[in-house]
Amino acid sequence: MRAAIIGGTGYGAIELIRLMNNHPYLEIGSVVSNSQAGNGFSESYPHLTEIINQPLESFNADRLAKENDIVFLATPSGVSSKLAPVLVDNGIKVIDLSGDFRLRSQTEYETWYKHSAPEEKYLSQAVYGLSEIYAEEIKGAALIANPGCYPTATSLGLLPILKANLADSQSIIIDAKSGVSGAGRGLSLTSHYAEINENLKAYKLGAHQHIPEIEQVLTDETGNPITVTFTTHLVPMSRGIMITAYVNVTEKISTNTIHDLYKKFYENHPFVRVRPTGTYPSTKEVSGSNYCDIGLHVDPRTNRLTIISVIDNLVKGAAGQAIQNANIMNDWDVRTGLNSIPMYP
Amino acid sequence: MRAAIIGGTGYGAIELIRLMNNHPYLEIGSVVSNSQAGNGFSESYPHLTEIINQPLESFNADRLAKENDIVFLATPSGVSSKLAPVLVDNGIKVIDLSGDFRLRSQTEYETWYKHSAPEEKYLSQAVYGLSEIYAEEIKGAALIANPGCYPTATSLGLLPILKANLADSQSIIIDAKSGVSGAGRGLSLTSHYAEINENLKAYKLGAHQHIPEIEQVLTDETGNPITVTFTTHLVPMSRGIMITAYVNVTEKISTNTIHDLYKKFYENHPFVRVRPTGTYPSTKEVSGSNYCDIGLHVDPRTNRLTIISVIDNLVKGAAGQAIQNANIMNDWDVRTGLNSIPMYP
Amino acid sequence: MRAAIIGGTGYGAIELIRLMNNHPYLEIGSVVSNSQAGNGFSESYPHLTEIINQPLESFNADRLAKENDIVFLATPSGVSSKLAPVLVDNGIKVIDLSGDFRLRSQTEYETWYKHSAPEEKYLSQAVYGLSEIYAEEIKGAALIANPGCYPTATSLGLLPILKANLADSQSIIIDAKSGVSGAGRGLSLTSHYAEINENLKAYKLGAHQHIPEIEQVLTDETGNPITVTFTTHLVPMSRGIMITAYVNVTEKISTNTIHDLYKKFYENHPFVRVRPTGTYPSTKEVSGSNYCDIGLHVDPRTNRLTIISVIDNLVKGAAGQAIQNANIMNDWDVRTGLNSIPMYP
Amino acid sequence: MRAAIIGGTGYGAIELIRLMNNHPYLEIGSVVSNSQAGNGFSESYPHLTEIINQPLESFNADRLAKENDIVFLATPSGVSSKLAPVLVDNGIKVIDLSGDFRLRSQTEYETWYKHSAPEEKYLSQAVYGLSEIYAEEIKGAALIANPGCYPTATSLGLLPILKANLADSQSIIIDAKSGVSGAGRGLSLTSHYAEINENLKAYKLGAHQHIPEIEQVLTDETGNPITVTFTTHLVPMSRGIMITAYVNVTEKISTNTIHDLYKKFYENHPFVRVRPTGTYPSTKEVSGSNYCDIGLHVDPRTNRLTIISVIDNLVKGAAGQAIQNANIMNDWDVRTGLNSIPMYP
Repeated sequence: MRAAIIGGTGYGAIELIRLMNNHPYLEIGSVVSNSQAGNGFSESYPHLTEIINQPLESFNADRLAKENDIVFLATPSGVSSKLAPVLVDNGIKVIDLSGDFRLRSQTEYETWYKHSAPEEKYLSQAVYGLSEIYAEEIKGAALIANPGCYPTATSLGLLPILKANLADSQSIIIDAKSGVSGAGRGLSLTSHYAEINENLKAYKLGAHQHIPEIEQVLTDETGNPITVTFTTHLVPMSRGIMITAYVNVTEKISTNTIHDLYKKFYENHPFVRVRPTGTYPSTKEVSGSNYCDIGLHVDPRTNRLTIISVIDNLVKGAAGQAIQNANIMNDWDVRTGLNSIPMYP
Repeated sequence: MRAAIIGGTGYGAIELIRLMNNHPYLEIGSVVSNSQAGNGFSESYPHLTEIINQPLESFNADRLAKENDIVFLATPSGVSSKLAPVLVDNGIKVIDLSGDFRLRSQTEYETWYKHSAPEEKYLSQAVYGLSEIYAEEIKGAALIANPGCYPTATSLGLLPILKANLADSQSIIIDAKSGVSGAGRGLSLTSHYAEINENLKAYKLGAHQHIPEIEQVLTDETGNPITVTFTTHLVPMSRGIMITAYVNVTEKISTNTIHDLYKKFYENHPFVRVRPTGTYPSTKEVSGSNYCDIGLHVDPRTNRLTIISVIDNLVKGAAGQAIQNANIMNDWDVRTGLNSIPMYP
Repeated sequence: MRAAIIGGTGYGAIELIRLMNNHPYLEIGSVVSNSQAGNGFSESYPHLTEIINQPLESFNADRLAKENDIVFLATPSGVSSKLAPVLVDNGIKVIDLSGDFRLRSQTEYETWYKHSAPEEKYLSQAVYGLSEIYAEEIKGAALIANPGCYPTATSLGLLPILKANLADSQSIIIDAKSGVSGAGRGLSLTSHYAEINENLKAYKLGAHQHIPEIEQVLTDETGNPITVTFTTHLVPMSRGIMITAYVNVTEKISTNTIHDLYKKFYENHPFVRVRPTGTYPSTKEVSGSNYCDIGLHVDPRTNRLTIISVIDNLVKGAAGQAIQNANIMNDWDVRTGLNSIPMYP
Repeated sequence: MRAAIIGGTGYGAIELIRLMNNHPYLEIGSVVSNSQAGNGFSESYPHLTEIINQPLESFNADRLAKENDIVFLATPSGVSSKLAPVLVDNGIKVIDLSGDFRLRSQTEYETWYKHSAPEEKYLSQAVYGLSEIYAEEIKGAALIANPGCYPTATSLGLLPILKANLADSQSIIIDAKSGVSGAGRGLSLTSHYAEINENLKAYKLGAHQHIPEIEQVLTDETGNPITVTFTTHLVPMSRGIMITAYVNVTEKISTNTIHDLYKKFYENHPFVRVRPTGTYPSTKEVSGSNYCDIGLHVDPRTNRLTIISVIDNLVKGAAGQAIQNANIMNDWDVRTGLNSIPMYP
């Protein structure tokens, strides 16, 4: 099955290429980058020298539809909203890694993203691709809105306790930390090495566009309207996201009980590893892999649950989950092409 | 005035030396390291080559008291509790950078530190050296318990809102992040470069010995028994602490109003810089300096205040605050020897 | 084919496990760690949670030989010299990742390694496993001395020009730089995060045990006794080695000509990528992969060739080359299990 | 004495401000940044909040000359060449941190810098400000060309052996490594965090504009026309330069003898610390300070001397040496304002 990649010179596309290279059924098809069309890959990414030899192409919906079986959009928000409809109308399945089709409400989208929302018609057919939760819907979808990196780690961390109705849904605080690659390869002072190295920075307090996405999933899954406090920090590392989530539990309950609840919740989901009580995952322990690792601790003094949830932002938080969704859509084992061991150290 | 340093080969001692070197009234007196006695400084710390030429000494209370006017204990917890009494009994003023004299309750100490508490007699005369809050008590003290790095950033961040009675004192959550130097120069897998670099790690959930210290200060200053949720994370950087604290405010109140409250609270305290609303401090912006920088944000959707408070853990979190306390004890301008600009980048 | 790993809790072993997991014909057999025997893997390496579930075993030559087809020794120098003979005598093929069997001369070994050399009998049957150069010998070998990380990058960088007789073999200077994982997981001040981060350090000038190994290969392959100047530096990164080698060329010759020579030399060796002239490889561009990437520049003003050669020290510099050698020994395609794309960024 | 700074929002200017803040005789005068004129400092550099409150000004030669006693140009190459003449003609002393006035030959300048050279008239009056070597000339100068970071570390490392006529002046190879701040605060893929972190990169082989500067100093001081091989590498750290220089010694000579020669050469120069034999400086050991630390090793097998020379590129490699030169020009102790201890760790 040939898979095209649009937005071919961003980190998301590059990670798709790395992962597809290990995938037995997905073959790298067209790779599109309007800005670099005609150039070789290794000019932008010398690590692909002698590995990916095809040139970058410009966008052509007809040709894309003809020559490929599925398209991954690794384009920025605002671009996907324009390209996805063309492709869907051409009858090709689309997995969009941007935020454009994640929010069902156009108003919410425009409030947080500050530009025009996609058409209602496409929004309504998009399926939110949180693989562990929405596998059924993903199976038949024509357009997948691949979840954001923060929402993936957050939702997987919070859903078991919330769906068990054991937590105060208005008490949720999410302290999020990310490596720098999450902001992409674009140039800005906040990705300048000398500004970020040996530094820790909080940013976008109360204004991050992943807030409504998180609230939408948690609200959908619990049936209660949920509002969260969500703070993002930039950590001096290239890859990795950690979510430290806090929630008040509604009855006296031990860490062990909650641990068992999580183990059961994820027993058929190989990419979520609930860690033994008393231990907590670190980001490097999932680096390069599609795992989401979760640690749990209830403080009996405050009756508050602390959840540590880590992912590699470029894998489970982007390209890996996109391929996981492609596996689900095609009824392949969900692990197909994604069973590499994290790179440690 | 001659100042002795005990525990001469740890990072705390080395930072005291760096700072004293710029201090017009404090002169480096005896430097004691039992393990390295007789050796030169630059064997352990080549950056001091041709700067500090005196040899390291072994501990001798009489000689210390005779040749020095003040002693800084940069010794580990469990060691200070033994040395401080001897020195205090010898009539010499002591500033202890360890945790030994910070908790008033022996029981609490033994619960969290897992070894024997100092004698009641010395505990009761120790003054908690949070300079901005306890200057009056510090002035006349014979024994200063210099605050921990996390409690310094936390208390300075939380006290203005708590003392103004504008927050729910049972809602406090502190998400703390530290660089690696906070754990000292000792060898362990959690300070091994290849394990920490490109990694982010949560540790000691619900078990960190700074929890009772924070609760003691907040309780003392508000009159309410306060219990906090406190989570610590290890960040891949050498220096710097950031506290992200969350607290529910008890009435509708804007970020601006809280900002004004903080500005007023710290108007006579040059080392606390309350940042303009909409901006948040990063750890590098205080690196090498005694500043504690604070950023504030109220989310009107959740009525929750987020406080970002950063310090250099080795300066305001240890050696810098110790010298600030020495300045207060001697009625010198509090900035004496501490007015260097942060090193950026 | 079952492959045992001895020295199971070092970085070399962990990397062998990561790579074998992708190998279609090699199955992880016994994993031996005397210090951790009986424990699970994920206690030492939580990133292997739910991936490698077998317990660590203690060393038992009989059982090893019975249950496995090949043994990888990821043990320290001085340990391999004792274990390899027992295994070889038991008729099992051994690939040793330590330095114990690399030097043919016992005297040289003892001069540089400062402990007793292995027995002559085993030294003489060991084959130096520089895969691109000694494939023929490797094929039939019972005991492979897998090359050191520095010697691999150095030899692959220097051999084409030296074997073409175009350089002054007495003018070789090798300025080598390595990440910290090369020193293993053991604890020492030179792997302490706060000492290494934001630091660059030269070490072991004129005393590194890889010097005689490099000289032996270059001498063997050119027929001239070669002495090199070799300086090692510790770079604040976890993985990666770069060799910057300098050599005087003996006639006026352009970068292009030398580039063509290198391309030809490595045309049948997929893991050596000679980069286009005017570009130079960086270590991240081979990270996690078995590639050795080479850049070349002749300065016409000095008639000196500068060679940049990079590898991932844990892959081509250790575990990857070991598996490459296993592929050669078994007549599998040399790329089997090793065709992952470097992880970038 | 009031000192103006032009180019006020680059790292060079920021470091001048940090250092001048500790200087008893130099007061920060006008700070000029055309792009940020009218803005406060702390908008670009929040670490200066409440420290530097004056606004940034636009360039006005008259006003600058009237209100200041000396001007530091921290402007890019190509800009200084235009501003310095105006200021010099206005009778104000100028210390230029760019490369514009370092090369005496206009042709050489234009070959390496690829834009027009300054006028001969100004070039000929500029004094090369390598403080330890040209103090006499610096004293009376109206225009100082402050040396480049690489040439400073290189010249101080090589001059003692070359001037003693103990080395083959045609055998010099300089393997140079720098942190990222050397490239300034401008945005480029080569300062993007995710591209540089956990990476080591060689760049500008045979094309770095510091090559003719190094050759000019070495040629001037030895009387022999010297051509060097010079390779630069980008190291994942913010600050610090290390030069590893190689040179053939012309007679059998021990490390000790060379060590004594260097100690003698620098005995009256407090900022050059020649390290004991067998030890080598690391970049962190001079971080934030004006030291240049040197380590030496002769390999008796090859009769080659290896010199390790480290500086902080922003201090001794830029702002610190500029202030050292101001001290010399004013007949102040050379250490004035520069005696801070390196920040370690």
